[in-house]
This record gives sequence, structure tokens and C-alpha cells, in this order.
Amino acid sequence: MAVVEFWFEFASTYSYPAAFAVEERARAVGVRLAWRSFLLAPIFGAQGWNDSPFNIYPAKGKYMWRDLARICARQGLPLRRPTQFPRNGLLAARVACRYAEEQWLPEFVRRVYAANFRDDRDISSAEVVGHVIDSLGLKAEEILAEAQTQNSKDALRTQTDRAIKLGLIGAPSFAVEGEIFWGGDRVEQAFDWALGKRDVVAL
Amino acid sequence: MAVVEFWFEFASTYSYPAAFAVEERARAVGVRLAWRSFLLAPIFGAQGWNDSPFNIYPAKGKYMWRDLARICARQGLPLRRPTQFPRNGLLAARVACRYAEEQWLPEFVRRVYAANFRDDRDISSAEVVGHVIDSLGLKAEEILAEAQTQNSKDALRTQTDRAIKLGLIGAPSFAVEGEIFWGGDRVEQAFDWALGKRDVVAL
Repeated sequence: MAVVEFWFEFASTYSYPAAFAVEERARAVGVRLAWRSFLLAPIFGAQGWNDSPFNIYPAKGKYMWRDLARICARQGLPLRRPTQFPRNGLLAARVACRYAEEQWLPEFVRRVYAANFRDDRDISSAEVVGHVIDSLGLKAEEILAEAQTQNSKDALRTQTDRAIKLGLIGAPSFAVEGEIFWGGDRVEQAFDWALGKRDVVAL
Repeated sequence: MAVVEFWFEFASTYSYPAAFAVEERARAVGVRLAWRSFLLAPIFGAQGWNDSPFNIYPAKGKYMWRDLARICARQGLPLRRPTQFPRNGLLAARVACRYAEEQWLPEFVRRVYAANFRDDRDISSAEVVGHVIDSLGLKAEEILAEAQTQNSKDALRTQTDRAIKLGLIGAPSFAVEGEIFWGGDRVEQAFDWALGKRDVVAL
């Protein structure tokens, strides 16, 4: 069966509730997930944006924060609006890319999101990311060093290039054999696609 | 019980499947609908856009057409990508605003959308809009004249001003006592809100 790629960026607000919901839902319907971290900056940069569109377009930002609050409330997920937005998720993304196949990866991802959107911690700092790694019973120093080797940096760059080639325009997104679904609210459609329930479309 | 306002713009692609689905779903859950036509141009203009963002940002446009095709396929709704996009829905919006309370209004709205997105007809023309009115067994000439009086023009302008004040950023949107839900995929959340199933949110 087709794998569902879950594409996320640590700065992305809507990726927070999605990261907390996706694994359980995938298990419920029997779909295999692959976690794919990437960076939105090059994708937004190609549109001429050097900041989050939610900051560039305040009306969009205002709606997003309210919508996010409703989504988190529905999921029973705490949300505190971070004092800084967006926060640079580069280091965490490198860890997530380098260790994508590890069993602890999904929990690492969720804890980084919680640090940002629940605890208002600065996830761009090695201290905060290291603290998350520690909390999983792993060796932070080792993992952070490995995540910042040239190989690991290149791996994230390559993965972000793949996101661009796939045509991703935001996060979170789902990809199933090249078919793209944008937004946490598209998770069931992506799963259906992976399960072979594909609507015939011709355009 | 709170009324759900369905805000739509005739140029809007995602409003097409929403217009075909919303009434049946509202009936199924026992929610009262109000149809609200408005214009996106002043809202997009405030963001510095003088065209559809789907044209300004081709990556977004590419994704949208594919996503729309999937949504229409799911609903069993034919879709032909119009040779011109967006098409000016001003005249149709004036009709929809002036005759919002008429029983035939929802069917008029759906037929205008079908003319644009199924039949690739130019809905900016009085001929095409008139043909839709005729097809409902109504007097096109009379209705088109009435829709273009100063009163009717002002009514649509006032309604679009209200959309701006509500904070609408796109179409379709739902509004329930000032609470905004953007996107056809938010219909159930909007209905839940109207039914009193409101998640407690504080931000």
C-alpha cells in the first residue's frame, strides 16, 4: 500500500495540531506514515515572501490564530500564542531529517511543537531542542552534533528540494505517490488516496 | 438558533462545490442558511492583489485546480476548467444580493456556478445571467433591470463592506454570529457552532 508522507515545518502553526493527530489516525485506518521535515523559507521566498504570510497579510494572520485555537480546542490540545512568530525551526528540522526512521522521531516532533506553541519556548536554540532530546532519554549532545554535520545539513536541503519539486506550497501537507494534499484538514483525503479510494479526476 | 451565513463570490472556484453541497447539509443537520453574495476584489485589493491569488501565485493556482478537481469528483460534480479565470461576477452578485430572500435564489446561484465552471460560459455577460434566470421560469429582463438600480448596487456594496468588517479573507466563508469559518471544508464546523457545539477557545 502507498505510504503517506507527512510534510511538516516546525515554524508552521497548523502543523502543530496535525503532528499530534496524524499518527493515531494513520494507525486507525491502517496507513503507513513517513515523517518528512522541510523548510518553508525557500518556498515562501520563491513567492516573494521573506516572512510568514500570516505576518505579511494581517487579516490572514488574525483568522489563522482564531482558526488554530478552535482546532486545538477540538483536539483538547493546549495552545499559547508564542511571543515570537515564526520561530526558526532549522536545527529541529535537521534532527528530524537525520533521524526520520527512529522510533522516537514522532514524539520528538510533537515535543518540539509543544515547546513552541504550548510553552512559548525558543525552539531555534540548541538548549531547547537539546532539552527535548534529553526528555526522551537520549543523548542530546551527540544527536545535536550529528544533526549539524555537513551530511545532515545536505540531507535537509535535498529533502526541501524534493518538497519544492512535489509542488508543496505550505505545511502541513500530505503526499501520496506524488499526489499532494495541503492542510491538516486534508488528512482523511490523503489516507483515502493511499487506501486506493481515488476519485477519478481529469482536468 | 443562530443562522449560518454562507458567503460566496461567483468568481471563486471553491465556492462552486460549496454552493452545491451547503443546502442539503444544512437541511440534514437542521441549520438555517442565509445566502450572502459579495465581491472579493476589494478584499484582495486591500492585500495589494489586483488579480486572483491563484493567478498571482502559480504554484497555489496549480494546487487549487487539482484540489478542486478532487473535491468536485467526490461530490459527483462536473468540472471544466474555464478558459477565462477569474470571471467577473458583479452582475450575478447584484441579482443574488437583491433577491437573497427568494425561494429560487439558491438554484439561481448554483446555475450561475455551473455556467462558469461546468459549461465555461461568460457569467459576466447579461445574456448568460439572463439565460439562467429564464431557465428558472422567471422574467430575466425585469430582474436584470431591478438588479442594476442604484438601490441594488448600493445593497451589494453595503454587503461587501460587511464582509470586510467581519474579517472575511476569501470565499466561500461561513459566519455564525460573527464567528468566521473560511473554506468549503469548514462547513461542518460552522454548523456545529450554530448548533451550540462551541469549543471553548481563549487566545
